[in-house]
Amino acid sequence: MEHIRRSKVAHLLKETGFGKEVNVKGWVRTRRGNKFVNFIALNDGSSIHNLQIVADTTKFGDELLRRIATGSAISVNGTLNESEGSGQNVEIQAAEIEVIGECSPDHYPLQPKKHSLEFLREIAHLRFRTNTFGAITRVRHAMIFAVHQFFSNKGFYNIHTPIITASDAEGAGEMFRVTTLDLNNPPKTEDGEIDYSQDFFGKSTHLTVSGQLEGELAAMGMSDIYTFGPTFRAENSNTTRHLAEFWMIEPEMAFYDLNDNMDLAEEFTKYLINYALAHCAEDLAFLSKRLQEEEKNKKADERSMELLEKLRFVVENDYARITYSEAIDILMNSKPHKKGKFQYQITGFGSDLQAEHERFLVEKHFKKPVILTDYPMSIKAFYMKQSDDGKTVRAMDVLFPQIGEIIGGSQREDNYDKLLERMRVLNLPEKEMYWYLDTRRFGSVPHSGFGLGFERLMLFVTGMTNIRDVIPFPRSPKNAEF
Amino acid sequence: MEHIRRSKVAHLLKETGFGKEVNVKGWVRTRRGNKFVNFIALNDGSSIHNLQIVADTTKFGDELLRRIATGSAISVNGTLNESEGSGQNVEIQAAEIEVIGECSPDHYPLQPKKHSLEFLREIAHLRFRTNTFGAITRVRHAMIFAVHQFFSNKGFYNIHTPIITASDAEGAGEMFRVTTLDLNNPPKTEDGEIDYSQDFFGKSTHLTVSGQLEGELAAMGMSDIYTFGPTFRAENSNTTRHLAEFWMIEPEMAFYDLNDNMDLAEEFTKYLINYALAHCAEDLAFLSKRLQEEEKNKKADERSMELLEKLRFVVENDYARITYSEAIDILMNSKPHKKGKFQYQITGFGSDLQAEHERFLVEKHFKKPVILTDYPMSIKAFYMKQSDDGKTVRAMDVLFPQIGEIIGGSQREDNYDKLLERMRVLNLPEKEMYWYLDTRRFGSVPHSGFGLGFERLMLFVTGMTNIRDVIPFPRSPKNAEF
Repeated sequence: MEHIRRSKVAHLLKETGFGKEVNVKGWVRTRRGNKFVNFIALNDGSSIHNLQIVADTTKFGDELLRRIATGSAISVNGTLNESEGSGQNVEIQAAEIEVIGECSPDHYPLQPKKHSLEFLREIAHLRFRTNTFGAITRVRHAMIFAVHQFFSNKGFYNIHTPIITASDAEGAGEMFRVTTLDLNNPPKTEDGEIDYSQDFFGKSTHLTVSGQLEGELAAMGMSDIYTFGPTFRAENSNTTRHLAEFWMIEPEMAFYDLNDNMDLAEEFTKYLINYALAHCAEDLAFLSKRLQEEEKNKKADERSMELLEKLRFVVENDYARITYSEAIDILMNSKPHKKGKFQYQITGFGSDLQAEHERFLVEKHFKKPVILTDYPMSIKAFYMKQSDDGKTVRAMDVLFPQIGEIIGGSQREDNYDKLLERMRVLNLPEKEMYWYLDTRRFGSVPHSGFGLGFERLMLFVTGMTNIRDVIPFPRSPKNAEF
Repeated sequence: MEHIRRSKVAHLLKETGFGKEVNVKGWVRTRRGNKFVNFIALNDGSSIHNLQIVADTTKFGDELLRRIATGSAISVNGTLNESEGSGQNVEIQAAEIEVIGECSPDHYPLQPKKHSLEFLREIAHLRFRTNTFGAITRVRHAMIFAVHQFFSNKGFYNIHTPIITASDAEGAGEMFRVTTLDLNNPPKTEDGEIDYSQDFFGKSTHLTVSGQLEGELAAMGMSDIYTFGPTFRAENSNTTRHLAEFWMIEPEMAFYDLNDNMDLAEEFTKYLINYALAHCAEDLAFLSKRLQEEEKNKKADERSMELLEKLRFVVENDYARITYSEAIDILMNSKPHKKGKFQYQITGFGSDLQAEHERFLVEKHFKKPVILTDYPMSIKAFYMKQSDDGKTVRAMDVLFPQIGEIIGGSQREDNYDKLLERMRVLNLPEKEMYWYLDTRRFGSVPHSGFGLGFERLMLFVTGMTNIRDVIPFPRSPKNAEF
């Protein structure tokens, strides 16, 4: 076959140099046709749209064309033509076709029909070749890049905080143990306990649940930093919202108070969604249609907001900013509360808000994203800055339509005595965490930060409803396949 | 104190709007002076250079100035002036100074003197405030961003491959176990073995040693992908070159043969180093000086190449491309081999090359970076494409001055039968790895990829010699502090 430099499908679909000789390689989605001509829909992962290859049957013959089955890989040399068919601008009139890798229709699991998302999860190694997961992968990449670009433009430094850790950032949470001890015959101390001093790191170690504490250390010298790495929870929750392994983005900023923190969170989330709207228009249009089809059997009032409308809802509104206490008042006076429609009852200050309450505030009451601040100290983490009222902390949660909380953050406690006191009340190991306390002993400064669960963002941007569909190889109880 | 919007030190150092009122916040590096005036060197992590604050002693008084000790955090309002002193262009004539966080000179470990790198590792939570580690952190961020930008510009997608895995990508390598079993009382099967079916994932799981295999799955639908994530080795190696937890970049490209792979590796490494030269000039100048000072007691022939010269050595040369067999011939005919100067003897085809041999080829023989290809099958991994000669594989290693191998990669075996045969010879679990084999059953295509150890790159770009100095919180045997 004549050597012509390969072009990607996405590039050719936008090309207008008709008459040009091109080469394209990819995987066949479908082949259809009649006894004169075959139409091959080719995709190489660069676009939601396939490129149409036109192959004259007399030229290529039955034997070759039969090998061009769904899933097979081919290389095509041909002429770029303006397409007369509907749904595409260009097509390739094939001059040469090489079958690079065959694909037996009897064994290939991805046939040209609609497969359920459940089925695709079982063949996660092949679902990159589907429209839905291809679109999600492209959007996921766009969001990753946008995160780095946003922070880089603002002078933040990306910090790789440790994955294996001897501390527990949240002071709670179920963690995975990391060990090289022989489980059949672990070394024991004289007291009969496992002797972790003989483990790889000389102590008991786990997978991190958050990079925040180490991120704070970096911010105390570099001013503005962010982490973007995997975090872990060993919770036995088999739900559509939980993963055992997921990616988190955690910025930490020296000299930021809670207001600066809210400003950054609003600017950041709007930047990401504007980026998706600007760079992923075709994939989002496909995902919007997918969602509408999925929901067409639902009643009108149970359907989600249309995907693009929902994204614009975020970027076109100023986020409402109210305190937790104000939110409790609103909820206590709300219709669903009075009519007993909330699944979880709000009883007053101290109640933990559930997604249903957060969504009520966003979707029904304010009709815009909402930032709640000043939560009760008792329901928030030890490192949050205590307010003068003695009962609230300078926490903030950013609430979005559909998913509720998308960001959780706070100003951090920068007063050494208050932090130490709180750690003692909660029985945290102050000696082991001397390094965290040190940042409050030496040149302590007001500082703030927040965490964004990346897969939570992905659910929001793509309109998918199961978190296992927005990460390539999900990890959950009893599932570590691939 | 009057509210003026904060400017970063890096920004003010380039500012020419003299006479302007500005605010700057940061940590004090030094304060010196006389009875009329004090000079405060302030740093906020945004630059290798400090900003000089000029404070009249009569205006601020002894009591305040004494609190402005090394390590304390201050906020300064003042006038931006052209500096008359040498070594800086601007200075701030202080109008107001607030001490935000004090720092006791009696307890603060970072005094204004030279600390050893060993000591700084022990206080890794504070070393962000030093010149050396500040520079490294900024360069590290620049390299992270450059990686994403390079691949994004070329239409690659970043894939988050799993950290917790039930497979072992290299078919070897010591791994960390991930478990939620109770080590004191683990469940056992009837045979007395640990019953991993009762573990969190229902099977035995470990931390990944490479994202390559999963990366290949993604490339078989998306064409061009890259991973950038943490990888793990439970090797008990306490050396300056090994970490238990380190970050890897692994691109995988469908339709790439070994030549395409070499072209990409050369373009990629040159892009990264050009990016560092363009964006980190001041930090690199500092790191170059640091290296020269560190080596001034070494004999001339034991010193490293000057840092910037070494970086230009990479970007200004075409990489030499030779086969492993040619390299063996060159080495067998070399002076150090004939004089018995190599620590590890080269005996002919099949010898594993050590850093000393790689460096000889790069630094003495070719005087440019070298790409070696076509290694003996016996010393390379199972997934590499077998050549027709029956004894070599389409592997490539990219060799750099100072560090030897910086990239290892190959064309991948895309022939189902050959791959399966090799897996059987090496006793790999073919049933468990059905998903990897599937990509060779369904539309298999020639494809290639490589791995770049990110900390190895960081050593090269910064001129640091201990890998624990180029990652914020290193993990190594008996060390998981912070």
